[in-house]
Amino acid sequence: MVSNKFFAIVAGIGPATGRSVALRFSESYPVVLLARRPESYNDVVAQINKAGGRAIGISADATDESSLASAFETIKKEFEGLQLAAAIYNVRPNSRPSRKPFLQLTISDDLEPSLIGNIRGLFIFGQKVVPLLLESVDSSPYPPTLVVTGATASIRGSKNWSVIAAGKCGARALTQSLAREFGPQGVHVAHAIIDGGIDVPDAEHANRNDATPDGKISPYGIAESYWNLHTQHKSAFTQEIDLRPFNEHF
Amino acid sequence: MVSNKFFAIVAGIGPATGRSVALRFSESYPVVLLARRPESYNDVVAQINKAGGRAIGISADATDESSLASAFETIKKEFEGLQLAAAIYNVRPNSRPSRKPFLQLTISDDLEPSLIGNIRGLFIFGQKVVPLLLESVDSSPYPPTLVVTGATASIRGSKNWSVIAAGKCGARALTQSLAREFGPQGVHVAHAIIDGGIDVPDAEHANRNDATPDGKISPYGIAESYWNLHTQHKSAFTQEIDLRPFNEHF
Amino acid sequence: MVSNKFFAIVAGIGPATGRSVALRFSESYPVVLLARRPESYNDVVAQINKAGGRAIGISADATDESSLASAFETIKKEFEGLQLAAAIYNVRPNSRPSRKPFLQLTISDDLEPSLIGNIRGLFIFGQKVVPLLLESVDSSPYPPTLVVTGATASIRGSKNWSVIAAGKCGARALTQSLAREFGPQGVHVAHAIIDGGIDVPDAEHANRNDATPDGKISPYGIAESYWNLHTQHKSAFTQEIDLRPFNEHF
Amino acid sequence: MVSNKFFAIVAGIGPATGRSVALRFSESYPVVLLARRPESYNDVVAQINKAGGRAIGISADATDESSLASAFETIKKEFEGLQLAAAIYNVRPNSRPSRKPFLQLTISDDLEPSLIGNIRGLFIFGQKVVPLLLESVDSSPYPPTLVVTGATASIRGSKNWSVIAAGKCGARALTQSLAREFGPQGVHVAHAIIDGGIDVPDAEHANRNDATPDGKISPYGIAESYWNLHTQHKSAFTQEIDLRPFNEHF
Repeated sequence: MVSNKFFAIVAGIGPATGRSVALRFSESYPVVLLARRPESYNDVVAQINKAGGRAIGISADATDESSLASAFETIKKEFEGLQLAAAIYNVRPNSRPSRKPFLQLTISDDLEPSLIGNIRGLFIFGQKVVPLLLESVDSSPYPPTLVVTGATASIRGSKNWSVIAAGKCGARALTQSLAREFGPQGVHVAHAIIDGGIDVPDAEHANRNDATPDGKISPYGIAESYWNLHTQHKSAFTQEIDLRPFNEHF
Repeated sequence: MVSNKFFAIVAGIGPATGRSVALRFSESYPVVLLARRPESYNDVVAQINKAGGRAIGISADATDESSLASAFETIKKEFEGLQLAAAIYNVRPNSRPSRKPFLQLTISDDLEPSLIGNIRGLFIFGQKVVPLLLESVDSSPYPPTLVVTGATASIRGSKNWSVIAAGKCGARALTQSLAREFGPQGVHVAHAIIDGGIDVPDAEHANRNDATPDGKISPYGIAESYWNLHTQHKSAFTQEIDLRPFNEHF
Repeated sequence: MVSNKFFAIVAGIGPATGRSVALRFSESYPVVLLARRPESYNDVVAQINKAGGRAIGISADATDESSLASAFETIKKEFEGLQLAAAIYNVRPNSRPSRKPFLQLTISDDLEPSLIGNIRGLFIFGQKVVPLLLESVDSSPYPPTLVVTGATASIRGSKNWSVIAAGKCGARALTQSLAREFGPQGVHVAHAIIDGGIDVPDAEHANRNDATPDGKISPYGIAESYWNLHTQHKSAFTQEIDLRPFNEHF
Repeated sequence: MVSNKFFAIVAGIGPATGRSVALRFSESYPVVLLARRPESYNDVVAQINKAGGRAIGISADATDESSLASAFETIKKEFEGLQLAAAIYNVRPNSRPSRKPFLQLTISDDLEPSLIGNIRGLFIFGQKVVPLLLESVDSSPYPPTLVVTGATASIRGSKNWSVIAAGKCGARALTQSLAREFGPQGVHVAHAIIDGGIDVPDAEHANRNDATPDGKISPYGIAESYWNLHTQHKSAFTQEIDLRPFNEHF
């Protein structure tokens, strides 16, 4: 049964994690899917609506204040009367910084996209969703939740990952700080370290965890863990989880 | 529906975590409850059996090789034909080391109980259950799982916590090492950092998450998270989670 | 004896750490002091030159590419023939982000200064000094060294420290990545976590470690540790140290 | 000039670290070398005394209370009137636990030696030296210091390192706890993570940092860093350092 009082929002929809998280949360909530381009969410929005859920896709750049503000205007109209129960920040940098030797990196192509996509976007998104999550504390079926998608680079600066790690570690610190500030106010803020390559579902093994090739993370597994984070009782919040394939070396 | 092919074992049953974990896993599996004294498990064993589950309690010292060997003989007879799907190590040191100034501690009263209860017991228990978990890899409904209960002292040596932290950090390292060795063989090994005081359910708020007093961790919340660890897909294993009340300072 | 072949550069001169580090390194090397305003370095430059050392101060913004490029042009002229042996990144954000509730922060006043001062500045400075340090590997008396000043916020995102922690954790990750890339090429990259308030030397206890008020870090103590990092043998590099007063709670 | 008021003690003398640390500290203090067998320290004791220093070797098992008590009786007689300025715990487990699959390990051959050598020995040694270090706080030239030698296994439980990591992580936690308790009382407690293989000096490159083969840590480098820890001002204590060869992968 999809709620008629609460909704969820997923920022950053690609072929893997964002899409699977939206599908999972759509089993209980109407969902908003934010992505830069409509082709990123069109089919999954259709899939959810066809399956009896409720979904809208909005083209927006979560790292841009006015673009995000405009997206929230649309949400306000479309989901009038609904309160925010869960928000997922899963945005990738616009131009993904290559793993390259430090001296080959540039500010505009490598550093800025990482800082903007990982930190600034989360800052802007956080300032938009935290007030809405706070409003839901007393009424939400589960503690209102903000989940941020991280990676191995969120906890270490490996060789050739310098600007990616700077962005990811910065986002993790920001998330931690929000958890410490808003946890006591009843909002659950969690960070997930995705350690490994993520499988992109296709026709052959779509929506089936058991068919994920060994060594790849199932995005459905990630989505299930995000849902489990959301449904944790407020007396037992997890601030950080790691997720990796059983056979990943770490 | 309780499985007739797989069972779970919980070592260390007290008034809080062990009991709640046993209750949670008993919804799906027959469960073995290990504790030093029968009064620790008698009522919860009765409660599970009365509710249509299947539970046996065994008096054993999980930190003693022959006591544990004898317990596994009993299990073999009682649960003949069943395979092990999940094992929880939740044992407390026999004589809980006090939080005291270092120069007031003794080897026999403080250091040894911590090393034996936290590290040696886990070592002995691990050597017993890992071979059984490995046997279940191909048949178990969820990846066979070993969960170890840790605490804040598992990640830091605070003032006056010296021997507790030594035992807890040692156990965490051992768990991590097992995760790295047995994950690739299909066994999920996870560690939980319980950060905060745990509520002891009583008549007034038994089995109800929502009634846990603020600032205390609900043992049912812990149990739910352990179950969620157990049911993770093998493509997305979590090695470590933290659990704390929403209003815990950290 | 001050070297006539090698020099050191300290970016970020204030009343405490940068000044003390410059003084310490000036015992062995000619030093360049970079700061936004000449009043930050004028007196310490004079002090070094008067004491028989060799120092120049350059007004530059280390977080601005063209300003830093122009500073390095000046250095090239002033210190012609000298090679770079050590570089210290000790720059503070231009407008120090306040410790404030997250919802009171703004991008322009709080987030951007932190990301620019902590991460972008280090990126720009690193791209300038690393090539020079690499050139010195075979000739430098000690392994050429880059030391980055961090803080407690470099390893945790505390409540109300969100954007500071994002910048500091990002800078730490960047430093770690540089250590992993350039260590094997012979350049020592280290990060220092300064955990506590730093004493500002004044007339009463200037240049005397023993007179530092309890609970404050002596900047001379920091400078000595930076020098010890610089003089480590290449077979035993330290990547990270913490520094705190003996009576700091941690 | 060797002090005639203070002495240092090094527990655990082998062909590398312990020996080099004793040599380094003997430049300033009379030193006690503790090892299980006299052949471990005889030549280095002779070397120090010949060079104008003052050293005594004592055969003792630092992990055995009565053996260590007896050693301190000897010290009291031999170094009458001297106070303890520095103590180094560098003891290896008696029978070094092999890196082996978990199911091949035994309690007596693998687990116990690791827990005894790493944790119990440090506990016993700590209880002996901390009171002596506390007595020296007001008079010692540098803050009285306890340094504990750790390894990569002190911070992670890698595959096949289970019992080694349990012992090492436990010792690190114990050290951290002592730092937090005794720092505010003026005793500097530090932990060193030695990450890499250590060179064993021989005739060819003895006592010369610069001759250490690439990829091996010079024990003289370790000794120098331990000395630098000891001489840190009390306003800027380092609790933990890592030490690795410039070309070590980490």
